Amino acid sequence: MEITKKELVGFNERKFPENICFKPIGIIHTPFKSLKGIPIQFSMSNAKGTIEIFPKYVAGLKDLSGFSHLYCLFFFDMVKQPVPLQSKPFLINEKKGVFAIRTPFRPNPIGLSIFEILEIRENIIFVNNVDTLDRTPILDIKPYASQYDNIKTTKIGWLKGKIKNKVS
Amino acid sequence: MEITKKELVGFNERKFPENICFKPIGIIHTPFKSLKGIPIQFSMSNAKGTIEIFPKYVAGLKDLSGFSHLYCLFFFDMVKQPVPLQSKPFLINEKKGVFAIRTPFRPNPIGLSIFEILEIRENIIFVNNVDTLDRTPILDIKPYASQYDNIKTTKIGWLKGKIKNKVS
Repeated sequence: MEITKKELVGFNERKFPENICFKPIGIIHTPFKSLKGIPIQFSMSNAKGTIEIFPKYVAGLKDLSGFSHLYCLFFFDMVKQPVPLQSKPFLINEKKGVFAIRTPFRPNPIGLSIFEILEIRENIIFVNNVDTLDRTPILDIKPYASQYDNIKTTKIGWLKGKIKNKVS
Repeated sequence: MEITKKELVGFNERKFPENICFKPIGIIHTPFKSLKGIPIQFSMSNAKGTIEIFPKYVAGLKDLSGFSHLYCLFFFDMVKQPVPLQSKPFLINEKKGVFAIRTPFRPNPIGLSIFEILEIRENIIFVNNVDTLDRTPILDIKPYASQYDNIKTTKIGWLKGKIKNKVS
């Protein structure tokens, strides 16, 4: 059955969810088979990997290859809950709130990386700048557009002066 | 009980998940009480809103106020599944794959916006550039840093020539 209709829940039926559940749309294959040596940020990685989109979702890739970069949302499946709400990030010896750092140890362990698209062949997206563990479940892919997503930040808080040079 | 330890699932116990479930960490309050008039992109919005982080997570906000912008991940709770894998985005009269557009109608309806942080008071984050329906559940907040997140895209596919000027 081809699905063509976009439907919404009625406003009367809307209620605030206690649980929000998703199904992975794919899996990423990377050179990082253990936690040791994983780059701490995509912007510090030149590693290549492949995102395998499960066959039932392959039609969703139409025209993605026109973009040079994508947002990849993934699930840090190895993180045990509950996580601490404050911890020390890699770059500083001082506890910060989990929402002020990029740690995988988050109340909802969703990862967000920006990868360069090298090539798309059928259901496989070949990507650069990979910073995820091999066999990590993928939740979503969105096109990255500098016109929307490049924000000139005026303040970067505790990160100021701590950011190392990008690899690429 | 204060949680301080960050724990991982053992590699032997790791198995690919069929379902991935989260609990909302907060709710966003915006001027958009119905679907009509919601900006199609945060970069086209100057609307203000507040992210209410639920009290149990408030310690996670420590030092976020040092940043000028944040990534907000939210759940498009009104989207009915299944969604079409291809549909026409706002800016063009041609079907595109769901992973090449930013539609809320996604297999996993996770929204991603970049908001300017105006102020943080206890568990309330006052934000600008809001493009979400009032009372949308929040999944995660991450600090935005131009040093990581500003990518010079070389290709923006079907969006080329279609992007209107930013509001801000």
